Amino acid sequence: MQDQHIASAFDRDLEAIQALLMRMGGMVETAVLDAARSLDTRDEELASEVRANDKAIDALEEEINQEVARLLALRSPVGRDLRTALSVMKIAANLERVGDYAKNMAKRTSVLANADPVEGSTGALRRMSMAVVSMLKDALDAFITRNEVLAEDVRVRDEDVDQMYNGLFREFLTYMMENPGTITACMHLHFIAKNTERMGDHVTNIAEQVVYLSTGELPDESRTKMDQTSLAVEPS
Amino acid sequence: MQDQHIASAFDRDLEAIQALLMRMGGMVETAVLDAARSLDTRDEELASEVRANDKAIDALEEEINQEVARLLALRSPVGRDLRTALSVMKIAANLERVGDYAKNMAKRTSVLANADPVEGSTGALRRMSMAVVSMLKDALDAFITRNEVLAEDVRVRDEDVDQMYNGLFREFLTYMMENPGTITACMHLHFIAKNTERMGDHVTNIAEQVVYLSTGELPDESRTKMDQTSLAVEPS
Repeated sequence: MQDQHIASAFDRDLEAIQALLMRMGGMVETAVLDAARSLDTRDEELASEVRANDKAIDALEEEINQEVARLLALRSPVGRDLRTALSVMKIAANLERVGDYAKNMAKRTSVLANADPVEGSTGALRRMSMAVVSMLKDALDAFITRNEVLAEDVRVRDEDVDQMYNGLFREFLTYMMENPGTITACMHLHFIAKNTERMGDHVTNIAEQVVYLSTGELPDESRTKMDQTSLAVEPS
Repeated sequence: MQDQHIASAFDRDLEAIQALLMRMGGMVETAVLDAARSLDTRDEELASEVRANDKAIDALEEEINQEVARLLALRSPVGRDLRTALSVMKIAANLERVGDYAKNMAKRTSVLANADPVEGSTGALRRMSMAVVSMLKDALDAFITRNEVLAEDVRVRDEDVDQMYNGLFREFLTYMMENPGTITACMHLHFIAKNTERMGDHVTNIAEQVVYLSTGELPDESRTKMDQTSLAVEPS
């Protein structure tokens, strides 16, 4: 293993790690879609699959971290190569968080399967999840192809997800006030909405790594945005 | 800048970065305590200070990331030194998340200052925050002194925080059901409780970096624990 530190050796190693990252991304996409589908169709079996699969996602993050550490130790990259390696770790950490939120959504599915449905809400949540998954696909694509325009597009689309969440927040408040019998179900649905909104924030963090790669700095207002409902007093 | 890669040069650079990390930790502690106090005493001025100070915390994380990248490029550490440098980045990322949750708590203070108080709840939330801050102090201490026993203690104490959260979740559900007029306030209080519980998870992640440092691997069950209320159907 007396490799020299030449560009092509680094690139070859990096490609292998990026392949792991793409695999992890695919698993997280599936987890989010399946969790949302299980909620919408009250499919408890699918929900428990999502929960079981999260371990594999976590293991893959660990593997990526180890491989990046190995790459740093072996190749001692600098400049853009170093930033790329560090970006991979950051992206894997964000993917792991999205996977965790999907697992949590699947857990709540089991509870909600036994409660009265709250009209139309799970469909709206599913659409929100689909928007996040489409952002996720594009964010990873933007990373692999170093496409800043696509990354910027992902950041903009996160605003739609925030708006969907804000609408749902107000909707759930209204249901709870009109019918206290829906409070428990609405609390869970609301958490799912909030967690999906947070998934969007993590996907946005991934998109921002593309900007970091080119410039060495994160874009302005890069920090995870908090929702606007923290300022909401009453539903309209 | 033709430094040689000798241990003492790495150590000197690392110490400077760890000093930044400790400063960031101190700022985050203050943010959490002030946010909880502003909620309990309905101090809107203090709450807006917390919100304003979050920018400085974010900037410090950026600075730490840049300094770690510089350290990696300049000293090409391997083995334990490399793990230490990567741990610093992970810890800074977790601190930033805790700071974000404190900011969000402070935002909700402004809303809740204008709502009827929900008996005893802000005191309970403040105690929960104090438990998290005490864990945070010990986790950072454990990192600096490489004290695995103290780190393990922090992990155990996170279970208390989880229990406090589970108790509050049930309490808020009861209030909402008894009196729908408290629904909006309880939703915000509940979010604060949930976010505080998540702060505990991030502090636990920091403690786990101490184990990673010694062994090169994260402890079992290291993934962020989700709360048990995702399985709760009705309050007891």
